[in-house]
Amino acid sequence: MSFDLLIEKIREKNNPTVMGLDPVLDYIPAQIKKRALAEYSDDFKAAGEAIFEFNKGLIDAAAEYIPAVKPQSAFYEMYGIDGLIALEKTIAYAKAAGLYVILDVKRNDIGSTAEAYARAYLGETELFGSSKAATPVDCVTVNPYLGIDGVKPFVDICNERDKGIFILVKTSNKSSGDFQDLTVGDKPLYRHVADKVNEWGSGSISNGYSCCGAVVGATYPSQLAELREALPNTFFLIPGYGAQGGTAKDIACAFDRHRLGAIVNSSRGLMCAYQKAGDDGRNFKACTRDAVIEMRDDINAEIGG
Amino acid sequence: MSFDLLIEKIREKNNPTVMGLDPVLDYIPAQIKKRALAEYSDDFKAAGEAIFEFNKGLIDAAAEYIPAVKPQSAFYEMYGIDGLIALEKTIAYAKAAGLYVILDVKRNDIGSTAEAYARAYLGETELFGSSKAATPVDCVTVNPYLGIDGVKPFVDICNERDKGIFILVKTSNKSSGDFQDLTVGDKPLYRHVADKVNEWGSGSISNGYSCCGAVVGATYPSQLAELREALPNTFFLIPGYGAQGGTAKDIACAFDRHRLGAIVNSSRGLMCAYQKAGDDGRNFKACTRDAVIEMRDDINAEIGG
Repeated sequence: MSFDLLIEKIREKNNPTVMGLDPVLDYIPAQIKKRALAEYSDDFKAAGEAIFEFNKGLIDAAAEYIPAVKPQSAFYEMYGIDGLIALEKTIAYAKAAGLYVILDVKRNDIGSTAEAYARAYLGETELFGSSKAATPVDCVTVNPYLGIDGVKPFVDICNERDKGIFILVKTSNKSSGDFQDLTVGDKPLYRHVADKVNEWGSGSISNGYSCCGAVVGATYPSQLAELREALPNTFFLIPGYGAQGGTAKDIACAFDRHRLGAIVNSSRGLMCAYQKAGDDGRNFKACTRDAVIEMRDDINAEIGG
Repeated sequence: MSFDLLIEKIREKNNPTVMGLDPVLDYIPAQIKKRALAEYSDDFKAAGEAIFEFNKGLIDAAAEYIPAVKPQSAFYEMYGIDGLIALEKTIAYAKAAGLYVILDVKRNDIGSTAEAYARAYLGETELFGSSKAATPVDCVTVNPYLGIDGVKPFVDICNERDKGIFILVKTSNKSSGDFQDLTVGDKPLYRHVADKVNEWGSGSISNGYSCCGAVVGATYPSQLAELREALPNTFFLIPGYGAQGGTAKDIACAFDRHRLGAIVNSSRGLMCAYQKAGDDGRNFKACTRDAVIEMRDDINAEIGG
């Protein structure tokens, strides 16, 4: 139920981190792009092929050490249908490698439309007398601005099918305070969202955590500590480590005494490890593997893993 | 600039309404589904084909009378890659029919990711030494929860390329008040979002309206009137007319004295007009055309059009 599968994989790898897969073409090693361009004359097709090849290499390099991957939908939608085909292939490849897949889509809408999104990614689509999964992942991110109508269809499918969602509470970006920090009564808006996340997930607690997780940025460590206290049964997805400035010290407070309760994302830091190492891209897999291990050890050193 | 193209088309058709294209299979006439199933053994492919055939018929029926269509991304994503191919074909078909295309995606993310979304739908994607439009539409919907970081990439591309966005302010659903109505200082959160929409669009006013429009539900008429007053330079996208309960009287206040400033959406009311008329689907085009004209006349009667 809920995040049991993620928790199992975190324990198995002794690693509470997730590799973001945000495939900007600039991140992809030259030799992969060259091969894709030789094979496809259509630029979008070549981009889709290069993205999938790169993702395969990243997954091959990391799968032994990491419990999960988090593809960011924007960076696939940006390449049209060919990008979305690369996303589907990446999801299937990651699942086959035993990884938990969090699809970062931040979807949100009125009830009937939210249900269509929930079915698309966590459930099944009704077709002609049967139903099939369109783009099956383990977990998606959800934006709460429309209230419970937009979240309940996801929660219902989570409960039916042992899936999870991470709801945006306090995001990692600089302007997250524009609305999230506005004071409502005696506390900021993000705390009201947190209270609702707590309420919405209350019927689905397993292994100490409900199916409604929360996105809380590593870039706001005091809010992270405050939210950990307020939400003892909420699993956190923590972006903002590494390239965005968050450190292992900043996020240590998000974990419980079993070193669970949070998963920390790094995208560029792992995908572009070869660039940082001064490699020309021929050894990107080894560089990513080293960076995955380094991140794991960095965080485990702080949380006693 | 901004919404000039939409305004031109609204004037040309003397019709401030938009047809939502939310293709649930249950909405599609039996004979279209039967043909698609005869042609494709794969259920998702048959669904994609049926959706596109239905949308083509709806566009053919309505294009003479209506300025715009609004496909809802969820109902295409629900059918996987085949659904997304149907979406791309629908967008191209609508553009070729001279319609303004608002893609309802409610995207939102941190700056670099929001830029990827903005490029995907309103701008161009950098490929191998060139750039190309991935899924080009005139306008998208945007969720404001992440603040200016998540909106500015859209605004920048709007200004460069004469596009528009509609930002969620007060949505039409029942639970929209869960967060949007919370009191911050002396006014509800949605008014703070409205102030920011006003500020973010202030540099792009043309024909009286900025590139930052607002989504305000027909189901909350007093808030609609309040927001019209507060946001004289903001174009409104108004969902909730018809099937959701909003009437022409409820939304008349959203228009300026030139009968501009708002566009009213109906999805099910137009797509399923044949069902309401007791038709078996063979005459769905005529039924939709009649419903489009009826909606136009209903709203124009209230606003003096």
